[in-house]
Amino acid sequence: MCIEASCMLPSLLVAFIYREQAAVSLIISIIITAAIGFILTRIKTPVLSIYTRDGFAIVALSWINVSLFGAIPFVISGSIPRFIDAVFECASGFSTTGATVLKEIESLPKSILFWRSFTHWLGGMGVLILMLAIFPTVKANTINIMKAESPGPSPGKLVPKIHQTAEILYIIYFVLTAVQVVFLLAGGMPLYDALIHSFGTAGTGGFSNRNASIAAYNSVYIETVITIFMLLFGVNFTLYYMLVKRNVKSVLRDEELRFYLGVVIAAIILITFNIYGTVYQTIGDSVRYASFQVSSIITTTGFVTADFNMWPKFSQAILIILMFIGGNAGSTAGGIKCIRIVLLFKIIKQKITNINHPKAVQAVKINGRIVSEDILYGVLAYFFIIMSITAAAILIIALEGKDLVTTSTAVFTCINNVGPGLELVGPIENFADFSALSKAVLTFCMIAGRLEIYPIMLLFFPSFWKRSSI
Amino acid sequence: MCIEASCMLPSLLVAFIYREQAAVSLIISIIITAAIGFILTRIKTPVLSIYTRDGFAIVALSWINVSLFGAIPFVISGSIPRFIDAVFECASGFSTTGATVLKEIESLPKSILFWRSFTHWLGGMGVLILMLAIFPTVKANTINIMKAESPGPSPGKLVPKIHQTAEILYIIYFVLTAVQVVFLLAGGMPLYDALIHSFGTAGTGGFSNRNASIAAYNSVYIETVITIFMLLFGVNFTLYYMLVKRNVKSVLRDEELRFYLGVVIAAIILITFNIYGTVYQTIGDSVRYASFQVSSIITTTGFVTADFNMWPKFSQAILIILMFIGGNAGSTAGGIKCIRIVLLFKIIKQKITNINHPKAVQAVKINGRIVSEDILYGVLAYFFIIMSITAAAILIIALEGKDLVTTSTAVFTCINNVGPGLELVGPIENFADFSALSKAVLTFCMIAGRLEIYPIMLLFFPSFWKRSSI
Repeated sequence: MCIEASCMLPSLLVAFIYREQAAVSLIISIIITAAIGFILTRIKTPVLSIYTRDGFAIVALSWINVSLFGAIPFVISGSIPRFIDAVFECASGFSTTGATVLKEIESLPKSILFWRSFTHWLGGMGVLILMLAIFPTVKANTINIMKAESPGPSPGKLVPKIHQTAEILYIIYFVLTAVQVVFLLAGGMPLYDALIHSFGTAGTGGFSNRNASIAAYNSVYIETVITIFMLLFGVNFTLYYMLVKRNVKSVLRDEELRFYLGVVIAAIILITFNIYGTVYQTIGDSVRYASFQVSSIITTTGFVTADFNMWPKFSQAILIILMFIGGNAGSTAGGIKCIRIVLLFKIIKQKITNINHPKAVQAVKINGRIVSEDILYGVLAYFFIIMSITAAAILIIALEGKDLVTTSTAVFTCINNVGPGLELVGPIENFADFSALSKAVLTFCMIAGRLEIYPIMLLFFPSFWKRSSI
Repeated sequence: MCIEASCMLPSLLVAFIYREQAAVSLIISIIITAAIGFILTRIKTPVLSIYTRDGFAIVALSWINVSLFGAIPFVISGSIPRFIDAVFECASGFSTTGATVLKEIESLPKSILFWRSFTHWLGGMGVLILMLAIFPTVKANTINIMKAESPGPSPGKLVPKIHQTAEILYIIYFVLTAVQVVFLLAGGMPLYDALIHSFGTAGTGGFSNRNASIAAYNSVYIETVITIFMLLFGVNFTLYYMLVKRNVKSVLRDEELRFYLGVVIAAIILITFNIYGTVYQTIGDSVRYASFQVSSIITTTGFVTADFNMWPKFSQAILIILMFIGGNAGSTAGGIKCIRIVLLFKIIKQKITNINHPKAVQAVKINGRIVSEDILYGVLAYFFIIMSITAAAILIIALEGKDLVTTSTAVFTCINNVGPGLELVGPIENFADFSALSKAVLTFCMIAGRLEIYPIMLLFFPSFWKRSSI
């Protein structure tokens, strides 16, 4: 919480630069958050060792915590007066979803919008991984925190020491973001806007400071830069580390990367043909809007340059499937993650080969290495659990009586941390009209999706709260 | 095929009784089918032994075959002039889906409608299991045919000999159907209608000879009888065998049965409260329509007494979830099957317990017996494959440009062998307006859903068609 308070400082700086009244509310929020955080550090706890369950629990509780306290500036400044709305917006920020309850963005104080977008950047790599990078003194077993927080089935340690891994990841993250800011500045975007949109791209979040999102600039250059960086932030960061180490071969052979790029290209081609002639009159426009939207949705960023509510159903169906696929493991993207999808299809192939040749036992391999049955089992279970939570959430939100496409895509977009859905939650719409119950459920979906379910689920199991006898 | 030809005989009898011209087309169909079948039996093949892959392939090809030849009477009689429509209708019959392309049913010849509904009864238990029951001389390893055709993850042999098992199942099936006919007659339904609706109930199909389905009778007695029998045919037939053997305790303790009944009761209660006051003015009507529709959808029968297109979205969302749950394994119902859902939830529980207590290895049990990892793995894979085929089918059907609720529920209802969907494929609508491509895809979904995917998938794998070196 003390870190969160200090993370609000850049926004305070923005408030001073623009001489905004919101500075007062930011100062109050910083004091509240830091004070409670400081009091809590005074409570001495017998720290033994962090087991998997503890790692998961710490992460889940921390995320709920940052979402609650991160909402304070929105409420105090009066930008988002209702607390549940502010929590929704803040959870949407930290979980890098980018779904908003705001109908009008441009009239808000710049410092508040800065905080809103900065949560994307913080949430992208994981608030706790940041903590690990900064405080290398935290005791061993912190790998369990990282396991719980970083997306994907098996985060490898790049280097033996966990805090070094975190450091390297953050350096890559920081450098890429900085490079994007430079590119956007070169395109004539103001520094403030460039920072906001780079945070949104880096965290694959999607909050903009413009009501029309990226469409507001109507610049092919800016769209191209953002498209490329969205795709870059959807790639496993480990691959960048390998590039730095000049291990180009392994990167090119990476099966997840190949699948990811293959899906992106296929989706762009299919959508281009589908919207050419029906929505856009030139092939150039079709390619332009198809590639931006495909990249934005598969990386679960959620920036938009076109209202795909008006696109043909086939293109919409593709976008929905892309939401579930998501980016690569080890990136800042959401969704099920490409590597899981690759493994799932390999499992099916294995199953059918088994019927065909019952005697030939074939192991599932990825990048030439055998994947253990345990991991495959986990990936399969993960798919089912995502679908069950999706179904349960749809059921609750259906109580509102909104049409089923709105209802389901609202859940799809939140659990996969995308941002926009279809119909009433489409690209130029927002989540303001949902009831408090629905917003709470969607907030849950966003955090659960970002943490890949298990840490959050754990908190709902009664046996977790019982004192362990170990 | 000879069997299929002889299965058309009862319809011919109906044609004679009602002195219909359709008799001629039935005779022609019988001759064509029987003749080709007879010619094929002349081809001598070196039969060695039926391996799993052969069993799966025989079943898949047979089902495609019966759907094609079973469509002949519809075409020749002129009832359904287009061949793809007739194949759709016939596959819908054999797969016990009950989705129809017919806008007007009551004007068709009674004998043709009889054939249409009789396919439900044949498809319900499986055409090939019927063959096994009739020809006990077929060589060993026929368990592989049964494995491929009967729904559920692990069909137990009731008795050591496979053809005896098939016989027992058919006797139960026949007796239950006969009892239902008697009950319907007692309610004043004409014999012809009673047969049609009993076939539809027994096979959990859903074809009616009335345009308004069961709503046409507007009789609480008939609705109650059909509700009860739909639920009965959704139960694992093994349990009836156990009842006959007076093993009541095991039946009552059966976890799948408990889950099934629990879901039915919960769904009825939730929907009743949701439609009471909004759609129906009395609590009695609400219970009446809720229970009929819930039983019809979860058993994947598809008879209707209410247009749930007009129901609130919450009730619709529940019905969609029920489609995927389906009946019990070893019943005539479709869907994923209750036992798989029970296992899936147990797997999730096991996963989370594992995080909580990493050292305690807990096996998943059902009815007190440990379920092997292999079966669990298979169930998880099955869930993913159903979802992938659903997604792929939705993508193709989205090319039509119909709204996404129509598009998705059309696929949901076909792959789960239910019958009606929502919007344009709602309870009082039909599938006539789809393109030939969409109908072909939906036909594929119906057969794939009925055979639980693997046999059909096998045919799509190139390696299957290569001559095995074994």
